[in-house]
Amino acid sequence: MSASSDYVPPKVWTWNKANGGRFANINRPVAGPTHEKELPVGRHPLQLYSQGTPNGVKVTVMLEELLALGHRGAEYDAWLIRIGEGAQFGSGFVAVNPNSKIPALMDRSGPTPIRVFESGAILVYLAEKFGAFLPTGPAERAECLSWLFWQMGSAPYLGGGFGHFYAYAPSKMEYPIDRFTMEVKRQLDVLDRRLAESEYVAGSAYTIADMAIWPWYGGLVKGWLYGAAEFLDVQSYSHVQRWAEMIGARPAVQRGRMVNRTSGEPASQLWERHDASDFETRTQDKLATGA
Amino acid sequence: MSASSDYVPPKVWTWNKANGGRFANINRPVAGPTHEKELPVGRHPLQLYSQGTPNGVKVTVMLEELLALGHRGAEYDAWLIRIGEGAQFGSGFVAVNPNSKIPALMDRSGPTPIRVFESGAILVYLAEKFGAFLPTGPAERAECLSWLFWQMGSAPYLGGGFGHFYAYAPSKMEYPIDRFTMEVKRQLDVLDRRLAESEYVAGSAYTIADMAIWPWYGGLVKGWLYGAAEFLDVQSYSHVQRWAEMIGARPAVQRGRMVNRTSGEPASQLWERHDASDFETRTQDKLATGA
Repeated sequence: MSASSDYVPPKVWTWNKANGGRFANINRPVAGPTHEKELPVGRHPLQLYSQGTPNGVKVTVMLEELLALGHRGAEYDAWLIRIGEGAQFGSGFVAVNPNSKIPALMDRSGPTPIRVFESGAILVYLAEKFGAFLPTGPAERAECLSWLFWQMGSAPYLGGGFGHFYAYAPSKMEYPIDRFTMEVKRQLDVLDRRLAESEYVAGSAYTIADMAIWPWYGGLVKGWLYGAAEFLDVQSYSHVQRWAEMIGARPAVQRGRMVNRTSGEPASQLWERHDASDFETRTQDKLATGA
Repeated sequence: MSASSDYVPPKVWTWNKANGGRFANINRPVAGPTHEKELPVGRHPLQLYSQGTPNGVKVTVMLEELLALGHRGAEYDAWLIRIGEGAQFGSGFVAVNPNSKIPALMDRSGPTPIRVFESGAILVYLAEKFGAFLPTGPAERAECLSWLFWQMGSAPYLGGGFGHFYAYAPSKMEYPIDRFTMEVKRQLDVLDRRLAESEYVAGSAYTIADMAIWPWYGGLVKGWLYGAAEFLDVQSYSHVQRWAEMIGARPAVQRGRMVNRTSGEPASQLWERHDASDFETRTQDKLATGA
């Protein structure tokens, strides 16, 4: 295995399990379940299977925002799927999301459960189900969806590109780091110019576009991702900074960020969420004490 | 510039314009326009600014499918934006898509023009405007949106990851090629398993999920992308092959694939499209002869 540039690809690629850096144990060239494992089901209409990564946070923020608006139908059980341990390859999870990525949602409010996967699809699904955070006027809706899809198509360059090569790959490779850094800085500048002219991403209203973008680009400018704040000079994106502060100050965002979180300060982690009171009496405390 | 693994990133990244491989001239770490340039406007309600890449083809296929269904309001002018020459950085284009990527759409059918960018957002916008190719039942709609967002979050690994490092980077680097190959094969297997159980991606109906996925993964298994058919063993994904043939046989797909296309057989290219008759009397012939 070499990162040097005298490599000649074979005619047909084959899997070398020794490759991959951090997370090599959970990256595979095939899909489908690796083991039989049913998913737990709680008492609420919505069952979320997730972890507190940026993609997971999008959805827990949305659910907490819906509850804060008074939508009781948005009550949810959030179950922890430990992706570092391969829980996303259990048969029950694959049945909800054949792509084996968190977050995944089952809506059990109707006669037949409905699965939804991909964080962007879950945001649209919940926004349409509850009539909130996705404008219905054609121009405002188009702007919101444009930015939502912008996030979905852009973040792979941030997470799977920049984050991987800057923080997780087995060695530091200049060309990939340089390539993805340039793109991430361009994306930050796109967002900075937008937020110079607009209070929220999609206009004057807080929408699912903000919820999708904040955990990634808000987290990045706050210095939460990849230890890359200085490298990317995140302080220079002042409008993104202004917006990241504003979104991060929302109580529902602060609650959503705790759910399914397994890193950081213990007080910031709520491994599972089954009731609004869990934010006070945290689930893992109950688990730890057997209560 | 080295691809070797003894690289130590600087404290703060700076732009070295010598880096980047093919397309280095159009990759930048900043957003915004590079020059003043108005966009042309034709006579139809919808103005598309695009090029015949997989992301561009999604939208021209959708428009041709809508016209084939009889939606006269889907008549469109398709203008060619030559991304290799930096046309996406003109001021008029940036005003429609601040992210400077094709495709971008202006809907001029109402009193105030509406901009839509990101191919996935354009597909949803058109599907909702015309009530076609996006189911309205909650379960079917959730499945369609899940697969649509799956495409948007997956294809960056195919295009910006695998395609770049396998075909366009200035040297062959084993680690990035290996990383992105593994992911693309996993994605192909996700799709193959889905299409083993379902006629179309989102179920029994042809939807915008098929239109989004076909130009990328259909093109890949047909051997159209990156010269990588043998390397990826695309023949082994037999259900994707079956589906790719089925979608590719649709007349609207064949027309959509011609629009804004600037490579391949001359007879397969229709640089601009302003009328259904343009498929017979191709625009570039008219341009070439001054007609």
